[in-house]
This record gives sequence, C-alpha cells and structure tokens, in this order.
Amino acid sequence: MTGPAAFLPILDWGRRYDRDTLASDLLAAVIVTIMLIPQSLAYASLAGLPPVVGLYASIAPLLLYALFGTSRALAVGPVAVISLMTATAIGDIAAAGTPEYWVLAITLAFLSGAMLLAMGLLRLGFLANFLSHPVIAGFITASALLIAAGQLKVILGVRVDGHNFVDLAVGLARQWDQVHAATAVLGSVTVAFLFWTRRSLKSLLVRSGLPPRLADMAAKAGPVAGIALTAWVTWQFRLHEQGVKIVGTVPQGLPPLTWPRWDLALWQQLAVPALLISLVGFVESVSVGQTLAAKRRQRIEPDRELVALGASNLGAAFTGGFPVTGGFSRSVVNFDAGAQTPAAGVFTAVGILGAALLLTPALYFVPQATLAATIVVAVLSLVDLGVFRRTWAYSKADFAAVAATVLFTLGVGVEAGLLAGVLLSLALFLHRTSRPHIAEVGLVPGTESYRNVLRHAVQVCPRMLSLRVDESLYFANVRALEDRINQELARRPELAHVVLQCSAINDIDASALESLEAIDQRLRDAGVVLHFSEVKGPVMDRLQGTELLKHLRGQVFLTHFQAQQQLAAEADTPLAAR
Amino acid sequence: MTGPAAFLPILDWGRRYDRDTLASDLLAAVIVTIMLIPQSLAYASLAGLPPVVGLYASIAPLLLYALFGTSRALAVGPVAVISLMTATAIGDIAAAGTPEYWVLAITLAFLSGAMLLAMGLLRLGFLANFLSHPVIAGFITASALLIAAGQLKVILGVRVDGHNFVDLAVGLARQWDQVHAATAVLGSVTVAFLFWTRRSLKSLLVRSGLPPRLADMAAKAGPVAGIALTAWVTWQFRLHEQGVKIVGTVPQGLPPLTWPRWDLALWQQLAVPALLISLVGFVESVSVGQTLAAKRRQRIEPDRELVALGASNLGAAFTGGFPVTGGFSRSVVNFDAGAQTPAAGVFTAVGILGAALLLTPALYFVPQATLAATIVVAVLSLVDLGVFRRTWAYSKADFAAVAATVLFTLGVGVEAGLLAGVLLSLALFLHRTSRPHIAEVGLVPGTESYRNVLRHAVQVCPRMLSLRVDESLYFANVRALEDRINQELARRPELAHVVLQCSAINDIDASALESLEAIDQRLRDAGVVLHFSEVKGPVMDRLQGTELLKHLRGQVFLTHFQAQQQLAAEADTPLAAR
Repeated sequence: MTGPAAFLPILDWGRRYDRDTLASDLLAAVIVTIMLIPQSLAYASLAGLPPVVGLYASIAPLLLYALFGTSRALAVGPVAVISLMTATAIGDIAAAGTPEYWVLAITLAFLSGAMLLAMGLLRLGFLANFLSHPVIAGFITASALLIAAGQLKVILGVRVDGHNFVDLAVGLARQWDQVHAATAVLGSVTVAFLFWTRRSLKSLLVRSGLPPRLADMAAKAGPVAGIALTAWVTWQFRLHEQGVKIVGTVPQGLPPLTWPRWDLALWQQLAVPALLISLVGFVESVSVGQTLAAKRRQRIEPDRELVALGASNLGAAFTGGFPVTGGFSRSVVNFDAGAQTPAAGVFTAVGILGAALLLTPALYFVPQATLAATIVVAVLSLVDLGVFRRTWAYSKADFAAVAATVLFTLGVGVEAGLLAGVLLSLALFLHRTSRPHIAEVGLVPGTESYRNVLRHAVQVCPRMLSLRVDESLYFANVRALEDRINQELARRPELAHVVLQCSAINDIDASALESLEAIDQRLRDAGVVLHFSEVKGPVMDRLQGTELLKHLRGQVFLTHFQAQQQLAAEADTPLAAR
Repeated sequence: MTGPAAFLPILDWGRRYDRDTLASDLLAAVIVTIMLIPQSLAYASLAGLPPVVGLYASIAPLLLYALFGTSRALAVGPVAVISLMTATAIGDIAAAGTPEYWVLAITLAFLSGAMLLAMGLLRLGFLANFLSHPVIAGFITASALLIAAGQLKVILGVRVDGHNFVDLAVGLARQWDQVHAATAVLGSVTVAFLFWTRRSLKSLLVRSGLPPRLADMAAKAGPVAGIALTAWVTWQFRLHEQGVKIVGTVPQGLPPLTWPRWDLALWQQLAVPALLISLVGFVESVSVGQTLAAKRRQRIEPDRELVALGASNLGAAFTGGFPVTGGFSRSVVNFDAGAQTPAAGVFTAVGILGAALLLTPALYFVPQATLAATIVVAVLSLVDLGVFRRTWAYSKADFAAVAATVLFTLGVGVEAGLLAGVLLSLALFLHRTSRPHIAEVGLVPGTESYRNVLRHAVQVCPRMLSLRVDESLYFANVRALEDRINQELARRPELAHVVLQCSAINDIDASALESLEAIDQRLRDAGVVLHFSEVKGPVMDRLQGTELLKHLRGQVFLTHFQAQQQLAAEADTPLAAR
C-alpha cells in the first residue's frame, strides 16, 4: 500500500466494503460484544477501577484502532495481564477506588499510548523482540496465577493486600476465618458454572440438536448469563443486605472527556511500568494479529500496529479509560466469527456504547464475586505450565529464563518478573555467543567437505590446523579463538599453517579484527602462517583494506578444500587419517 | 601441567632453574627496578597517596604473582589507569593525603583482590571479554588525557579539583594567574627532558659509540636521572623554601602490615569501582601477557591469571599498598630485557625492597612536579587517537562505542565512561544480531551453489522461495524472519514451497523454535510447504523430537541443491533466470 492508504488502512478496505462483508462483521461484533461486556467490567475491577471504566475503555480505543490498525481481526480492549500491570503500577501511589487512582490509570494509558506512538513513528518496534517467547510465556502464566490468587479474595469475601503471590497466599491463610459464607458460595458456584459453560455447554447443546454455530454462541454467552443470574439471585434474596458486595450504582451515559495529569515527576515514576505495559501489550497484540492475518494470507505491519495501539491508548486516556491492547481470546473469537475488516471493531464499540447508555442500571445488583469469577475462569486458560517441561527438554538456558520470570513475578511482582526475565535471557544469549563452538575439521575421504575431527573419521595434515568457528566473531567471543589457537600452538611444535574456515562467520567486529591481527602476529612470531577460507561476501567486503589483509602472509582461499590441497602440496606432507 | 604445578606454576619452572636463566632474570630485574622506582612513586601520587605507598605496592604483589602467575614476563605493580580509577573511586569519600584515604585505598585493593580471586576460582574470566577492544582503547586514551590534564596542575603548581576533563580544564583556566613560576619552570623542563630521553637519547648514545644495549639501559634510566637531578637542583637552590612542593619525609623501612576496613556499607559503596578496576586490570594484564607468551610459543591461562592477580592485590592490601596489575610498558621492557621466569619479578621486588629500606631519605627533596612530569610522559604514550579513524573506517558501531567511552570518560569520569562503553557496545551487538541479513538465494548456473539473487545472475523456481538467514535464530531476531516470510507470502500468491537454507544458523533457541512452528503453521494454513536444508549437526540434534519436526509437512534436505532439484521435479516447473 502506498499513498494515504499506507497511513490510514481504512481507506483501503473501506473502499471495497460491501453487504456481505457488513453481514460478517456485524455477526462477529455481536458475539464479541457479548464477550466484552462482562470482561471489560471485570478487568476494570481487576485494575482496581470502577467497572464502568471497562466499558469506557472499550469504545474510543476500538474506533481508533479501526482507523489505524493493519490487522483485520484484532479485538482491542481491556485485557487481564495489562489490567494487573496497571493495578501494580499505580496501586502504591493511590488507593484503589479513589478519583486520584482513576486519574493515575488515565495518565498511565496516556504515557503508554505516547510511547507506543513514538516507538511506531521511530520504527522502534524491534524493541519488543527482546521479550523472548519463554519470558512472555512464563510472564503470562505467572500473571494469570497472580490474578487468580488475587481474585480469590473477592470470591471469598475477605480483604487481602499484596502485589505478589507470597503476600497474597499469606494474607489469605491469615484471613481464612473471615471468609464471608454467602459471597463464597455465590462466587464458587459462579466459577463452577462458568467452567461448565466453557468446557461442556457447547457439546451438550450440539448433542441436544442445536446447530453448532448457535451452540457456540450460547456457550460464549455464559459469562453474560452468569452476570444476569447472579444479579437476579442477589436482588431476589437481598444478598447485598447480608454483606455480599455488589457493583452498586454505575453512572449512565457517554464516556466522560478526561485529561491525564500533567506532572513530570509522576511521569518519571510511571515511565518504566508504562514502557513494560506498552511492550507486553504490543507483543500480545502482534502475536495474535500475525497468526490471524497469515491464515488469510494477509499481513500486519508491526511499526504501524504500534501507531494504532498508541492511538487506541491515547483514546482511552481522553475518554476515561485505562491501558488497552489487542486481546488474544477475543481476537480469535472475532476471527472465528467471521470478522472481515476493522469495521467489526466499530460495531463492537457501538454495542458497548449502547451498554454504557442503557444497561448500566441493570448492573447495580451484580455481585463483585461474579466479576472475580469471570476473571478467574478467563485467566486460568492462560496458564501454560507445559512451558517448563518444553523449555527444559529443548534448552536449559530458555528454561532458566522461564523459571526466573515466573519466580520473580510470583515472588516479587509483575515488573520485577518481566525485567528479571529479559535481563537473564539477554545475559544467557551473550554468554552463549561468548563461548563459540570451535571445531578442528578434517577432510571426509572421497569428498571435498570438512567435518569435526571429534565426530567423524577424517583426514588431516599434521603440519596444518583447520579450525571452524561456528559463530560470528565479536568482542565477547574472539578471546576464545585466541585461547584455542594459543593452546594448539603450545601443544603442537610441528605446526606450520593455521587455516580458519569462515563459513559460519556472519560478521567480524573491530575487536575481532584486532584479535585476528594479534593472532596473525603471534603466529608469525612463532613461524606459523595464518590463512582464511570460505569468507562470506559481506565479511570480505569489510576486510578489504584492513591491516589484517595487508600484512597477512597467508592467503584467503575460496574453499577449504583448495586451501588444504595447496598447503599439503607445498609442505609435501600427505594427508593422514587422524 | 597437572598436579600441584597446575596451581603453583613455580613448581614447574623452579625445578628447571639454572645459572643462565638466573643471569637473564637478574639483568631484566635491574632494568625494571630502575623504571619502577620513579613510576611507583609517581602512580601513588596520582592515586592521591603518599609516594612511598607505590614502593609498598611493588613488593608483596610481585612476590605473590611470581608464585601463582602463568606469564613468564608480566611485570606487576602500580599502573597509571588503575591509579586514576583508585583516586576517582575513593576521592569522594575521604580527602587525599589523609590516613582515612589510605585505608580506603587498601580496602579497594582488598575488594579488587577478592573479586579477582573469586572470578578465577569460579572461572568467570570470560566477563572481561565484554570489554570490547574499542571500548578499552577509548577508555585508556581518555584516561591518559584525563591523567595528563590532572598532572598539569601539579606541574604548574596550582590547586584544581575534579574527576573529569571539563572540571579540570575550567579549573586550570580560572587558576591561570596563580601559576607558581619556579614549579612551572622546573616541571616543564623535566617534561622536556623526559621526552628527550625517551625519544632521542638512545640513538644519540648509539651514534656516539655506546653499544645499543647499554644505550637502551641509559635511556630507560631517564626518569631516575630526572628525579635525581631535580632533587639536587631543589636542594642546591633551596627551591622548596620558595614554594616548590617536595615529597618530604618518606618513612624508611619494611612495608607495614595493614588491614582493610571491615565495613559492609563501605564495601557496597566500593563494589562497582572495585569490579571495574578488577576487569580493566585483568584485561590489561592478560592482553600483554598473551602477546608476550605467544612470542615464545608459551601460553598463559586466563582463569589462573585471575587467581594470581587476586593474590597480588590481596598482598597489596595487607602490606600498605593499593590496587595493582600487570603493566603494559614495564612488562614489555621486562620481556625485551630477557626475563625468562617470574623469578625476575622476585628480584625486582627485592630491588624495590632495598629502595624502601635505603633510598627513602634521598627522596626528601624530589619535587612533586617531577613525579607529575614522569606521569605525563608515561601516559601520553598511551594516547591512541588513531582508534577513532580506524573504527570509523571499519565499523560505525564500534566507532560509536569508542566515541561514547571517550566522551563519557572525559566529560563525566572513568566509571561512567567504562559503563557507557560496555552498555552501548552490548546494545549495538544485540541490535545488529536482531536485524539479521536474510537473502533470497538462487542457483548459480552450472554449479551446485546458491547465491543472493540481488547480487548474482542466478536461476530460481517461481513456485519456490529459497531464503538464507545469516545469523543464529534467537528471540530477538526471529520476528524478522517471520516478517520476511509473511511479506513474501502476501506478495506471491503462486508460492508453493519455502526452503530455509540453514548453513549459517549456529543455534536455534526456544523462541526461534516456536516461531518456526508458527511459520510452518501459517504457511500450511496458506497451502505452502516449509522445508529446511543444510541444517548443522548440533542444531539438528536439538531439533530431533520437537513438535516442529513432528508436524513438518516438508523435508529436511542435506543440501540446498537436492531440495531444489526434488521440489522443481515434483512441481514440474523448470528453473528460470530471475
């Protein structure tokens, strides 16, 4: 896409919009709206905000994403992990439920939106790549456990504070005798009901003759039904008069026009949380967007997704909302329900607007435990304990990153967990590349190819050492090559030639270049000639004109086979089995 | 080496010690002692300590290094950059010249020694590899400029404080009218004299008939002659009564037995400086040790060098010294003078001990400006401005690391400079590996080899995409591959096969594995088959048993040529020029 459509994808898909697309988008919007109403209320509670803020965060952001987003099926709005991160970020600055707290949430959405926008315009989307998959998987699993543990207190009707698993567990254990029976029964039954609608309702309805599509929609309406039923029960039996906490009065009407707090000291305090929220939100959004786009051979553009998510969060900040992103489960539902264009998001926003205008009085009797139950059931599907087993089997370094992320998230909090995971995975990557695999290679008899002498029966020439380094040479690993060559030099007095096979070297930085010069110098002092073979084009381009090539007594051979043939012929020593 | 000799190299070389070796070692020791006396006094002053502390730091550390070190020619003792780093580290905690300040220097040597020892025993020597050559070169150049600027005030006889170039320059400019004429004249003449002995004396003596070896020794005695001459002039003309600052009373006798301060809060405060001093000292020591060892086809063992340097610094801490390491210039002199074994270091220590016992009264009249002149002339030889030009020509990333190191060192201070350089070079390395070179490749006609379609006239099959990734796949770069494949998928509706040529992929981490699974899934959803070719042995070993290979519809081909032949034959579409 070029021209204005490159900036406003709506100009591209809007032009070809027709009745069929409209029908698909409308159906998807209805289903997503039914899912989103209870979720948005619940995630706002999770973030420590009045439930109606969840509705506010599901209107303007969806409209703005529809304008700028490149994914056709992404469903933007409040999501569980970001809501938890919001609560953690501002929970220490103000008390949940106060107007001050709401302004902080709005400010956080503003900062996150501004950062996403800036990252998009500066093409810094690659920063999100530094959150490795194991770190994200560990983080989401640990966050989900943390969220579930946190909601347990609402379901049991006790007061417990804490941003980490240990505090929550200790608090719950201490308050065990304070459990509010009516709330606990209501909450537990709701959790069981929601699990049942999610797991079994659809197949039950299909078996009882309902068309699969309708059965699916009915199952997805489970949370809405749960809210309606528990609100009715509460009203009917006056449970709120017996201490069951309810949502209470919810203001009716359009989302308010709001402003973030313009306070530089506060912005500095919120900068790291806002950055982490931005990165996690972006990663979650792009992963699901990419998966869905590829299914229809479409693609999304990460840097423009940043702009779109930035606009969405800025929209949230100015309409009383809190940080949002593209949610995994709702986007999949949106896609499966047939959403063809971002117009489905516009229709969803209209549906939520309708709810904000008309439905809020009906929310008065909704028990808070029902919202907590909705959250628990939603987030437990995010828990993926298999990630421990998979990473352990495949790579201990990745396992360590997962373990650190999970332990720090549960033990300290979401920000510490994410930072620990990122820093450890970077440290482990650097450590890995700093210890390159260096193999002495020999000729596989009857071929022109070279293999590790320790793994294969190969031929070598005793006066010539062939080394293959399986890593780009850079400052952190070139000393390993120096050490290896020094070691071989001290061990083999007969050595006359060293040939480095460079087929796996994709880059040589200035440190490595200097080290190669030093190696060449040391070998020369010891009467040994250094050669190179199979140097890649881009690497060779850079080496041209350097001191290394100017002073090199040896040659740069096109293939390692040529090197060995020529050097063995010169030295008049035939190859021998090793 | 195995057995006890692996831990105490002295058992290895000591056993074969003979009269010839003794003669060589003695001669080298005499020359190094002549160099070391003025340098050790001067570097102690540079560190803000009484000059005699430099002698103390040149006795026990040398004996301990001789016991544990693996280099045959390394000359341990006070060096310029470490002395500056010492002054910076403790200068804000106590005033230079006070007993408190000396205890801090001792504590710093103790911490640095303990860290080096621990790094050696835990085999953490690789940590030093993260100081890239450009960062070290920039750091040493900037430190040398900083030292020279700092000594200028002593030569001019003014008082200026500051740990960075800007403070020093501003201070000097403000104090210009306070310059002490006698001191300035004496200092400037000494600087000129020292430059002349270093640059021209040797060739002058050779031309006047002296044997080159003797001429060299005479030239090396320049700083000692400078000290003797200026002390005589000062005494003769009573310059100290006219305000020329002199060294004054220097205690005579054995180094004292001292203890570091056992204060955890202080240790925490000194931890980062001690770590940086340890790393810089280790890097300087290992570089010169490695260079010298290779000239005789010997080698040093970095992890045991850490132990030896750790022991040396602990020795300094308990005998009234300050942080030491293997110095570049003295080690080269030691080697050139013929030092065969660490016994040369023992003899040097004996020489310095003699100086501490007998010579100190003679130091009374040595002007401080003479020591400053000695430092200026020594450090200016460390300045290597060519590093800017060389790194600029070779690699902009390395240039950026040098520039950041130099600017931060001069503008803020040594610690900030070193940290800025290390962090920037790591960030640039991560950035580079996060944007891998991905080339579409095609067959070079008449061969079996594949080259970038953008660089060469090659043949491709329109229904098949061959991609070569020139980087190991890991969390930070695999999204680039996803993006590229998504882009090609959206751009080429006729695509039926994607083959990844993996010859340059040395590792695939868990994130990359998951991304490859996602790529395979997306391609399958789009009706395209994913294949791999030329997967390396170690990579293939790990991929065995993963979901990726279990679910892969395509194949893993031994060579890319086989892949293309078979797929082109199946699809019945011949290759065509691109």
